[in-house]
Amino acid sequence: MSSQNPPQQSGNNLDPWYSNYAARTAGLAASEVRALFAVASRPEVVSLAGGMPAVSALPQELVIESMNRVMRDQGSVALQYGSGQGVPKLREQILEVMAMEGIKASADDVVVTTGSQHALELVSKLFLDPGDVVLAEGPSYVTAVVIFRSFQAETHHVAMDAHGMIPESLRENIARLKAEGRRIKFLYTIPSFQNPAGVTLSWERRLEILQIARDNEILVLEDNPYGLLHFDAPPPPALRSIEQEGVIYLGTFSKTLAPGFRVGWALAPHAIREKLILANEAAVLSPSSFSQLVVSEYLDSIDWRAQVDRFRGVYRERKEAMISALSEYLPNLSWTDPDGGFYVWLTLPPNLDSKQMLPRAVKELVAYTPGTAFYADGGGRNNIRLSFCYPTPEAIRVGIRRLQNVINGELDLLETFSATGPLQTVRDRSFSAPPPNLD
Amino acid sequence: MSSQNPPQQSGNNLDPWYSNYAARTAGLAASEVRALFAVASRPEVVSLAGGMPAVSALPQELVIESMNRVMRDQGSVALQYGSGQGVPKLREQILEVMAMEGIKASADDVVVTTGSQHALELVSKLFLDPGDVVLAEGPSYVTAVVIFRSFQAETHHVAMDAHGMIPESLRENIARLKAEGRRIKFLYTIPSFQNPAGVTLSWERRLEILQIARDNEILVLEDNPYGLLHFDAPPPPALRSIEQEGVIYLGTFSKTLAPGFRVGWALAPHAIREKLILANEAAVLSPSSFSQLVVSEYLDSIDWRAQVDRFRGVYRERKEAMISALSEYLPNLSWTDPDGGFYVWLTLPPNLDSKQMLPRAVKELVAYTPGTAFYADGGGRNNIRLSFCYPTPEAIRVGIRRLQNVINGELDLLETFSATGPLQTVRDRSFSAPPPNLD
Repeated sequence: MSSQNPPQQSGNNLDPWYSNYAARTAGLAASEVRALFAVASRPEVVSLAGGMPAVSALPQELVIESMNRVMRDQGSVALQYGSGQGVPKLREQILEVMAMEGIKASADDVVVTTGSQHALELVSKLFLDPGDVVLAEGPSYVTAVVIFRSFQAETHHVAMDAHGMIPESLRENIARLKAEGRRIKFLYTIPSFQNPAGVTLSWERRLEILQIARDNEILVLEDNPYGLLHFDAPPPPALRSIEQEGVIYLGTFSKTLAPGFRVGWALAPHAIREKLILANEAAVLSPSSFSQLVVSEYLDSIDWRAQVDRFRGVYRERKEAMISALSEYLPNLSWTDPDGGFYVWLTLPPNLDSKQMLPRAVKELVAYTPGTAFYADGGGRNNIRLSFCYPTPEAIRVGIRRLQNVINGELDLLETFSATGPLQTVRDRSFSAPPPNLD
Repeated sequence: MSSQNPPQQSGNNLDPWYSNYAARTAGLAASEVRALFAVASRPEVVSLAGGMPAVSALPQELVIESMNRVMRDQGSVALQYGSGQGVPKLREQILEVMAMEGIKASADDVVVTTGSQHALELVSKLFLDPGDVVLAEGPSYVTAVVIFRSFQAETHHVAMDAHGMIPESLRENIARLKAEGRRIKFLYTIPSFQNPAGVTLSWERRLEILQIARDNEILVLEDNPYGLLHFDAPPPPALRSIEQEGVIYLGTFSKTLAPGFRVGWALAPHAIREKLILANEAAVLSPSSFSQLVVSEYLDSIDWRAQVDRFRGVYRERKEAMISALSEYLPNLSWTDPDGGFYVWLTLPPNLDSKQMLPRAVKELVAYTPGTAFYADGGGRNNIRLSFCYPTPEAIRVGIRRLQNVINGELDLLETFSATGPLQTVRDRSFSAPPPNLD
């Protein structure tokens, strides 16, 4: 964890085992997102905070049919322990899913995990020693940063713009960290429809980022939960489609089918894959046979590509509702306009603090995730992540209108009680720390 | 890991990322049990090796009914992410299950995990620093030892006899380790129908072991997968029923329902429980909603206690088949005679090595787990774990007859090529290192 943002100690002297915890446990603090879930669950609140997929867009009878076929035809396998690597047939089917993003691979190198979150945990367990560094986009996925910290590694952020991670910032980070004698264990990236920024790494930059990683012998951890959820044209091919030996790829069925099954996977270079299986076996013995077989049967018997198209349509409509509401209610602010995925990244006027503003938002019955949740170094103070994945277009519109009230209320307060300068009204699509070559 | 049994490095210089792994990864070697699974899966082999429950004794229509009710009534919840602590209703039902072993608790202190294996991983992640010590019965559960090693902790074994862990050996271990300045993080124990020894900690010893733990401020990790699977009288009440603040209790539905769902739990003192939830969220976001709801619905609508009785009957019959076959075919050897659970612990003549003997066993079409798998220190060389949980009584009989051939063949070989003494024929129920107060 960085010095700007020390972890909270959640234990105290009332805990008789306080002095017994491992050093790494000091880094396990409740995330800002977690506290929000409690708030957002109240029905009168429009939550633009969580990342829950729109499972209501999945016809449940398709799942019920798959379940019943599994129990009828393979019940005793579904109920039993399985292999630590996952069901062979499902691993073959995962190849078909990844082929849609240009990836060629062998089912031997796929390891099924309890959601791709668990793949991220296992890779971190395999690679991270205390004091190691992980490079990640700034902002980055909140629970990735939590995992890295839980293994006592530091996350250092690479700047982004509307075309994704900026190669020059990556080079600068590597040079600085090497000069400091730090060990960079991997580059964690969400190249397509990034969480939380909503931007996509361009094809040219994919090539350049991979070349930088190769030149510096840095492993790349490509997390791709949203790649198939594009609104129009697909994103550029996956990093793993370009480079095999230097990339661990993480995928999931949580967004293209449903998260309730907890079925994700890692595709890893051969030697790493072998260790991942051992780590998976130590952690859970085997991923759920039942969940894997239901997902496999669903892929086999349902037109799952048509269902992914249906999800795309749902999310496209919701994204458009959000962008249109932002244009109407908050025309002076800047935001990203994603081509897929779940998230919009909003930049507030520089004198507003998104975390301090949250109680007012909850009072106005709208929830969001403050930008600081996505930085290990205290960045993101005047940013907000807005999720359009779960609420209906109507609810999104109501939520953004409430957000307008919240922001105006904060600005009035600032104007009344402090000597603030004029509002920033530039619509520049930059993030909290605009890089020099921003376009 | 102990010095007698250094971990194998499973990577090598063909792995370009070889020098990048965390120090802990050196401890992740393939277990002896793992290699056996491949062998045991050949249909002509009678496997007395694995610990797979007899899921064929579970009427599948009960599961199918529960699944369909869940999807009909709560489909959108089942398909979605859930809370990191687990479904509230299931946590209440888990209290009823634990009440059968004398435990009183609050659902607030239950954390649902991806099998109890994952609870063991998460507790280890929370507590174990490199160089820490875990105390565990000798022999102990193989994958527990693997987890402790994966967090760079050493397992030190406490001697057992037919009444379970020997309090005097626990005292001696603690005194020695304290004198050496070592940090003992917890005592890991399977008090009832232990894996692999099949023995049960007596009531008097439960009280004494807990007093020793209290006196030395050592946390107890009670792993209880088999407690409800007694053949006649139930085992003494759980350790957690006697002591609350000093015990983390692990339970699972893998043996009383089915392992394919991967639903287990931890019951932990309040402050530890809070950290367990955070660790669970970091690792998997939330355990599978679908699996949890199906288990919950099953517990609600099925007479699950009657089903546990049915499992008891199946395992009792298989245990009796194994003991009877051992008496007939290997009358000169000693073994434990469990009152519940899945396992018998067999002691070979002292000049036989169970691991060296394994290839001959596979040739004779019978598989078992060599005793060394259950020790961190190279112990168990002339022991074998025999599982009676999965094969039918007829198969068990065939397997033990084949094992007789294997052992006789090895003894003939030793007699022919070396100067061996007379066979040990004492039937003393002792383990590989008989303690002085053995009864």
